[in-house]
Amino acid sequence: MADFSRLLSLASTYAARVDWFVYSKFENGAPEELYRAAFHLYRAGGKRFRPFVVMATARMLGGPQSESDALPFAAAVELFHTYTLIHDDIMDDDDYRRGVPTTHRIWGVPYAILAGDLDYALSFKSIISAGSGSEAFDRTCILDAVETMVEASIRVAEGQGYDMLFERRIDVDYHDYLSMIYRKTGALIEASAKLGAIAACQTNLKETMGEYGRLVGIAFQIRDDILGVFGDPSKTGKPIYNDLRRGKKTLLVLYAYKHAAGEDKKIIESVLRGEARDEETLRRAAEIIRETGALEYAENLARRMADTAIKILDDIGEDVIEDEDAKEALVELARFTVEREK
Amino acid sequence: MADFSRLLSLASTYAARVDWFVYSKFENGAPEELYRAAFHLYRAGGKRFRPFVVMATARMLGGPQSESDALPFAAAVELFHTYTLIHDDIMDDDDYRRGVPTTHRIWGVPYAILAGDLDYALSFKSIISAGSGSEAFDRTCILDAVETMVEASIRVAEGQGYDMLFERRIDVDYHDYLSMIYRKTGALIEASAKLGAIAACQTNLKETMGEYGRLVGIAFQIRDDILGVFGDPSKTGKPIYNDLRRGKKTLLVLYAYKHAAGEDKKIIESVLRGEARDEETLRRAAEIIRETGALEYAENLARRMADTAIKILDDIGEDVIEDEDAKEALVELARFTVEREK
Repeated sequence: MADFSRLLSLASTYAARVDWFVYSKFENGAPEELYRAAFHLYRAGGKRFRPFVVMATARMLGGPQSESDALPFAAAVELFHTYTLIHDDIMDDDDYRRGVPTTHRIWGVPYAILAGDLDYALSFKSIISAGSGSEAFDRTCILDAVETMVEASIRVAEGQGYDMLFERRIDVDYHDYLSMIYRKTGALIEASAKLGAIAACQTNLKETMGEYGRLVGIAFQIRDDILGVFGDPSKTGKPIYNDLRRGKKTLLVLYAYKHAAGEDKKIIESVLRGEARDEETLRRAAEIIRETGALEYAENLARRMADTAIKILDDIGEDVIEDEDAKEALVELARFTVEREK
Repeated sequence: MADFSRLLSLASTYAARVDWFVYSKFENGAPEELYRAAFHLYRAGGKRFRPFVVMATARMLGGPQSESDALPFAAAVELFHTYTLIHDDIMDDDDYRRGVPTTHRIWGVPYAILAGDLDYALSFKSIISAGSGSEAFDRTCILDAVETMVEASIRVAEGQGYDMLFERRIDVDYHDYLSMIYRKTGALIEASAKLGAIAACQTNLKETMGEYGRLVGIAFQIRDDILGVFGDPSKTGKPIYNDLRRGKKTLLVLYAYKHAAGEDKKIIESVLRGEARDEETLRRAAEIIRETGALEYAENLARRMADTAIKILDDIGEDVIEDEDAKEALVELARFTVEREK
């Protein structure tokens, strides 16, 4: 794997700044118990992938000042992400995330729903707070940012809706699947890149950067699916074959189902139905995924998306790139997305 | 009771316009199942109280054009209200509302959470949609409207948080209670009145109208509490003593608890603990509420709030009132709020 030390170092700098902003601005409210519940998962960690995209994009297109201006937007996408995690954990009835019990495990379902709702509201509050302080922002930019978040929040809800409907079906086309993960995962990363462009007052590059984010977001999810079957549990921190055991409809399984035949097809069908539980069947399913070319297909697709995302950055005129290092970090991010082992 | 026929007729006109706007703009999305779940409670009816406040305020301050401009804001508050109902029903595990099974009873908790989330997102989408179409709106007004909704959504979540925390306590002061219902019920009606002023481009009257909405909202909730104990079930449609049986901490019970003594205090305490279940104890509790002066206190407080709300309208200069009928409807609304039997 390539050396991503520069990317990772910048990412931790950004994460610290965004966290400080979030804690100082939004964590202290009343009732305290509700705010504690709302910030429980946030405090437990996370990659801060989305804020990174906001901050790096802003810096690339507007330099250090835009990076600072982007803080409320970066905080907003992470607060929004936290809201979706809290609600998703309830929907999937998951017990742990980021090494801690999920919010509903500690506070119960009703309070966890509310904690998620509060994070959702605070994410919009953060966007709006961008209006006070910096003079770089006119209100049109902020409204543009609100609009971007609203669109993303509708897409994300729709994506989760499709994901849950797909659980009950086995005839999901993998193009349907790609459209679902665009909504569920891609849309918020697309919005993050757009928000970075808005923070830099480069709204004419909003769609271009949105396309970069969309591609990186989908590639990120495909890589996630791959690591779920072929990843090293000691690196990913997730039990092996977990997705297969749960009958999760990933690109790998859907592709394998389409291209397998005979006994193999039956095995993959049992996976799709969530009926394959024993280690041996799951291991065989993983082999079939490899043999049908599903793994290769998914890897290639993710890599092509990352390449296209990088090309988008390269096609942005040199005259509008304010910070080469930030651009390089976004190039590395696209590569990292598809090469990461965890 | 006074004659509210003018108010009720205008209310049904507004309700029809808002519903048409909502159905034509937001109801058709994919996945269809999710949109069906999101609009199930909306379609089941409701008073459309909040959209009425938006529309009548806009018309009072800006005439017919502002009333039309206010449609996206009116739709937004009702969509937001629908989101809170869906989530509240899950939290309270209620089976029926508006004569139909609650959303989670039909679609299950996970899908209902998501349906609420979608309504939440659509309410912001509706506000933002005000930018396209009418020329009356500049983007500053729309951002102002977004800000108003964001503040309300934080207050509403906090109010629900307090409400749930109060369930576990019996030492709730009735001033705490008033502050809770301001958040839970008042804040959205306050926002509705502010949105009406914004739609009429009378932002200087935003806070004034917000105060009107806040008072009407709190009075509305106090009247709700009174009807829950002393209302006629054939009119309210709710079983008698339901709130008492559930140990709901209303102004009536909290006031009675503070002012009762001896055996009476023990009965009210059993109500506060949610332990009073039999008809006889509940009937006696209602008597104590009357005897301690709690009923009179609550009625007077609600009436004073309605009077103050009306005075606020009367104090608005004649020169800025564009439509006397709309003003009269808002006066009637304040009266209706505290006199209604259902």
